[in-house]
Amino acid sequence: MATKWGILSASKISHDFVLALEKLSTEDHKVVAVAAKDISRAKDFADEFGISTYYGSYEELGNDSNVDVVYIGALNHQHYSLTKLMLESCKPVLCEKPFCINAKQLDELIKLSNAKKLFLMEAMWSRFTPAYQKVIEVLQNGTIGTVLHVQVNFGRQMSNIERIWKKEVGGGSILDIGVYTLHLVDTILGPDKPVFIESKGTLNSHGTDENMSAILEYPEGKIAVISIHTKVEMDCSAYIHGTKGTIKIHEPFHASNKVTVNTTNNDTSCYTFVQPDTRKPTIFPNSVQLRYEIDHVRHCLKKGFIESPVVTLNNSYTVQEIMDRLRNQIGVHFEDYDTSP
Amino acid sequence: MATKWGILSASKISHDFVLALEKLSTEDHKVVAVAAKDISRAKDFADEFGISTYYGSYEELGNDSNVDVVYIGALNHQHYSLTKLMLESCKPVLCEKPFCINAKQLDELIKLSNAKKLFLMEAMWSRFTPAYQKVIEVLQNGTIGTVLHVQVNFGRQMSNIERIWKKEVGGGSILDIGVYTLHLVDTILGPDKPVFIESKGTLNSHGTDENMSAILEYPEGKIAVISIHTKVEMDCSAYIHGTKGTIKIHEPFHASNKVTVNTTNNDTSCYTFVQPDTRKPTIFPNSVQLRYEIDHVRHCLKKGFIESPVVTLNNSYTVQEIMDRLRNQIGVHFEDYDTSP
Repeated sequence: MATKWGILSASKISHDFVLALEKLSTEDHKVVAVAAKDISRAKDFADEFGISTYYGSYEELGNDSNVDVVYIGALNHQHYSLTKLMLESCKPVLCEKPFCINAKQLDELIKLSNAKKLFLMEAMWSRFTPAYQKVIEVLQNGTIGTVLHVQVNFGRQMSNIERIWKKEVGGGSILDIGVYTLHLVDTILGPDKPVFIESKGTLNSHGTDENMSAILEYPEGKIAVISIHTKVEMDCSAYIHGTKGTIKIHEPFHASNKVTVNTTNNDTSCYTFVQPDTRKPTIFPNSVQLRYEIDHVRHCLKKGFIESPVVTLNNSYTVQEIMDRLRNQIGVHFEDYDTSP
Repeated sequence: MATKWGILSASKISHDFVLALEKLSTEDHKVVAVAAKDISRAKDFADEFGISTYYGSYEELGNDSNVDVVYIGALNHQHYSLTKLMLESCKPVLCEKPFCINAKQLDELIKLSNAKKLFLMEAMWSRFTPAYQKVIEVLQNGTIGTVLHVQVNFGRQMSNIERIWKKEVGGGSILDIGVYTLHLVDTILGPDKPVFIESKGTLNSHGTDENMSAILEYPEGKIAVISIHTKVEMDCSAYIHGTKGTIKIHEPFHASNKVTVNTTNNDTSCYTFVQPDTRKPTIFPNSVQLRYEIDHVRHCLKKGFIESPVVTLNNSYTVQEIMDRLRNQIGVHFEDYDTSP
């Protein structure tokens, strides 16, 4: 029987999510409802994707007994409240990245999902891509020895996009794109927490972070260096440096189709991952790869898991805590959220 | 009339220096003497390169009135004392990088060169390469707008090389290869000093730095991120991120033959710089490019300069101060040198 998805809300990422879901078997996945605050947006979205039901309120979708699991694709500042609402409505939740605005919010959601025994996961889709799976395989095989250094940049000119600059919606480079760099680092050097974090960045006139560079030290002197930027374009590849070789995740690392492994014996292996086209173009690059996390959620639900073994709640909580620390170091305070959940 | 060079000592970099010098006109440059502590090494070196005079002591070369200018290619810990000896012998000096072990030593040498009115320069050859000249030209043309971020890595597996691990000879990643990354950053974001420096690194069992990653903030929130490593191989390219585009200095950035400029208008320009072969292979990659700094020194001497306008003593001093700070932050103390010059 197909997993029946409810979508909150009719956003750009929800658009890509449903396009990606269309590439999976209809026997496995079906979108049965969409909700948005503005019912006309919900209707347009439902029409566009042939979704039978649409709602002008989130509560209604939460009360729809036909919905098995809810995907939250709303803006950052709504992740906490909508996830809470859905869990309270007894719906399992897949919530877009970044999970919450701060760790305090996330802690509350984790406790709620535990109490309710309901599946909860951050939609950190990168961790399900074949590129990341290949990286994990190469690391486990010992091909590049012990990883001592990870370098990853994410720089795109987008400081004028409201989602990015506006503090009220949970904007800023750290929450929007930094989260990808930190989840990559956590994938490779985690789940230990960093023992040292130091960062520098600049804020826009609204007090939101436009860029940030950070050094994270993990146990045994392993170093991660990340740079994120919303005012300059960067080569968004990731480099994993080991004692016996290097892995490059080609850009865009967070949704890559290519991994190159170079060993100090001068062996080079290149892995490419061909993706199917979506019915129409996705808004974000390579978003068809969202299908891997979508299928993973079905797998978890069928197994009765209340937590993903790939993107654990602990992984997400560690990243959320690091983001709190980075924001604090460079002086970004989300007045509406940082004082109480 | 040819500039007559004296070489101290018969080292690997001296080997490359003379090979590079051979590519220049014999009417402009001539090596007239070489000195080493071990006279048989000086003799072998003189034989190999057809140098007429060799000495078993540095003092003798300093007293050779046929020598116009001295190139110091000895190990790091000798740079200060040999430069001092040569200046006191009234010889202009081109001294290999890193100039000194610490800023205190360099301060003394700068004062001495000023007092004696003798030319003094750090052999930071990168700054004379066509690649760096092209970078400066592109920056001055405004092609990539305002530079907000510089990223440069220098990672090579060489922690077993005595010159690198041994504290007594002024080893360590910061002094040996970090100096290149810092001079590049100074070329682009300097000559202002950074307003914030934070770093992390690990030490070997001798207390010498094996690796180091640092964030440097320059005025107006401009950021440089550098990583150097002696235990892993890295892509040693440099990336200069501006508001209108990006410059990549292809690896090895410090002696590159290729620069790519990408603008946000999707224009790509690629510049390659073909180098002549040396008579036999150089020990260090692309060392034939040492010839640019060699010619620059002749130019300065002919003009009567006591300081290079390209690698100023201020540039070198700023970099030396940053290296002191970095060593201090990660806990490397050169007991034999840091207490007194």
